[in-house]
Amino acid sequence: MRIILDAFGGDLAPLEPLKGARAAVKEYGVEILAVGDVEKMTAVCRENNIDTKGIAFKQADGVFDMHRDAMDIVKKAKDTSLYVAFKALADGEGDAMVSAGSTGAVIMGATFIIKRLKGCKRPALGMLMPGKNPDGFLLMDCGANADVRPEMLSRFATIGKVYMEKVTGRQNPRIALLNNGTEDSKGDDVHIRAYKLLARDKNLNFIGNIEGRDILNDEADVVVADGFSGNIALKTIEGAAAFMNGEMKEMFKSGLGGMISAMLMKKQLKAFKKRMDYTEYGGAPVLGVQKGVIKAHGSSDANAFKNAIRQAVKYAENDVGETIEKALAESESGEENA
Amino acid sequence: MRIILDAFGGDLAPLEPLKGARAAVKEYGVEILAVGDVEKMTAVCRENNIDTKGIAFKQADGVFDMHRDAMDIVKKAKDTSLYVAFKALADGEGDAMVSAGSTGAVIMGATFIIKRLKGCKRPALGMLMPGKNPDGFLLMDCGANADVRPEMLSRFATIGKVYMEKVTGRQNPRIALLNNGTEDSKGDDVHIRAYKLLARDKNLNFIGNIEGRDILNDEADVVVADGFSGNIALKTIEGAAAFMNGEMKEMFKSGLGGMISAMLMKKQLKAFKKRMDYTEYGGAPVLGVQKGVIKAHGSSDANAFKNAIRQAVKYAENDVGETIEKALAESESGEENA
Repeated sequence: MRIILDAFGGDLAPLEPLKGARAAVKEYGVEILAVGDVEKMTAVCRENNIDTKGIAFKQADGVFDMHRDAMDIVKKAKDTSLYVAFKALADGEGDAMVSAGSTGAVIMGATFIIKRLKGCKRPALGMLMPGKNPDGFLLMDCGANADVRPEMLSRFATIGKVYMEKVTGRQNPRIALLNNGTEDSKGDDVHIRAYKLLARDKNLNFIGNIEGRDILNDEADVVVADGFSGNIALKTIEGAAAFMNGEMKEMFKSGLGGMISAMLMKKQLKAFKKRMDYTEYGGAPVLGVQKGVIKAHGSSDANAFKNAIRQAVKYAENDVGETIEKALAESESGEENA
Repeated sequence: MRIILDAFGGDLAPLEPLKGARAAVKEYGVEILAVGDVEKMTAVCRENNIDTKGIAFKQADGVFDMHRDAMDIVKKAKDTSLYVAFKALADGEGDAMVSAGSTGAVIMGATFIIKRLKGCKRPALGMLMPGKNPDGFLLMDCGANADVRPEMLSRFATIGKVYMEKVTGRQNPRIALLNNGTEDSKGDDVHIRAYKLLARDKNLNFIGNIEGRDILNDEADVVVADGFSGNIALKTIEGAAAFMNGEMKEMFKSGLGGMISAMLMKKQLKAFKKRMDYTEYGGAPVLGVQKGVIKAHGSSDANAFKNAIRQAVKYAENDVGETIEKALAESESGEENA
């Protein structure tokens, strides 16, 4: 198993991606193909005592700028580490890839360089988020498609179901539609129609609409969302968690009782903070494309890269792409090519 | 100043509304007109030693069921406490009203019984939410309009600006558009066009798009949203806060250090929990209608009712409705009648 790593994507590149790569080699026994300026990467490894056993390097001169038009990745950015990583994946130099680069460019590259699965016109970004269930739920789409049609939401459900079964082993996952109320009459026209499509698909364990306040409560395994509100839910959780972490920190600083408690509870507090840090969680798979492409959070540290690599391994090991294609062909809901 | 209270709206009615009414009379020196089954209300007051000084009672036999079609409030539910409260407000028996009843029915009643302001076809639900700034920011719309046009979003901004200036005293409030990215090219077609309208309106201090992760960070005073994603952001914050409160509680139960700390920090923990409980915060004003209508959270306790009454007082005292109408007439952005 060989995972391709865009070593120059993300805020902390290339040090953290390379540290994450090393940890992944050690823990999962995978090989890593690290893409970027090879001279810089080898220097960083040397300076930080990162063992390069199991890591191969592939040259790319440039870095894909976060503010650049995402579509540029397809044809105009061939010197960037992100493009070279995509090309290597397309050419079979690895089994799946990880990048913490521009979300838009990762989605565009996956769609047009790796190419879509049959039956899926609009790939989506999934995100495995921990809540009451520490193994998390899949939120999908969380950003690829701001404008959706009902048939797309129904396809997201089928794709999400396969991903959860294959990657987390959860059989017949509970599927819910993110909406502004639980009744089937809730939402805008797109969501009302999507509800009907989901309800009539016998291959899906559809449990109905879910509200923002319940998505962390382990009520559903797959939360289907349009890319606009899914993105807002994702980032709102991230922001709320960060805010509360900050408030809690202040609380432990206030008064003698707080300071003593901070010492007494050092270990628990660290674990709590980690658990509530939604930037630490692995990656978001681009789903609906022919190979595993995992988007890691822009501020990913070594641990987050390691987790993202683990997701890439699971994706490739379990033939997620093929199984999704098959499930879409058998799907009862939505048009073909939605 | 007299505030009309739907004493049979919400999960904890009529006890908590009446306790809240009593507290408001005492703290703000207002009069309350409590609407509902008068016999029941007086019995509850007697049994719970609630001083009824300053509280008048008005009979309504029924209660508006939460699951009933919201539009029924306009013509088909004349025996309910919610309708009688609306009617009393329309007839000038009070200056503003508070209800913790069905959100949909409160919006419909405000729109069609109290009637819209000139220049505002689509009233919206605002919500003052505390974050890094304990006085909060206004999220609007958070549920009245699932389908919006760009002109509506621009009107929400003008309305929200007036509300913040009049009710919180914050001058020239910073206005941002809730979107799935900060660049002006982000979002679906509606949000891209709304951005342009907001940017060209010289009466607005428009600071651009805001992402879910930043709304609690005191970056904007008014967060303009379509009712669908605004509702999802609101409920997601509520759910994330409840989840983290629960996790924190568990943390303090684990191990001796946690338990000792829980004792040492009893006061801080209580304050923290209160601050993070988004169900405790006063009310959501229905904005764009002729009189003050405040929707309190369904699970409001006495304190939440008291806060909602305070919002109603401020609304009425400061001629919010008139000022909004004037501001809409002067607005440079959006069509008339959006």
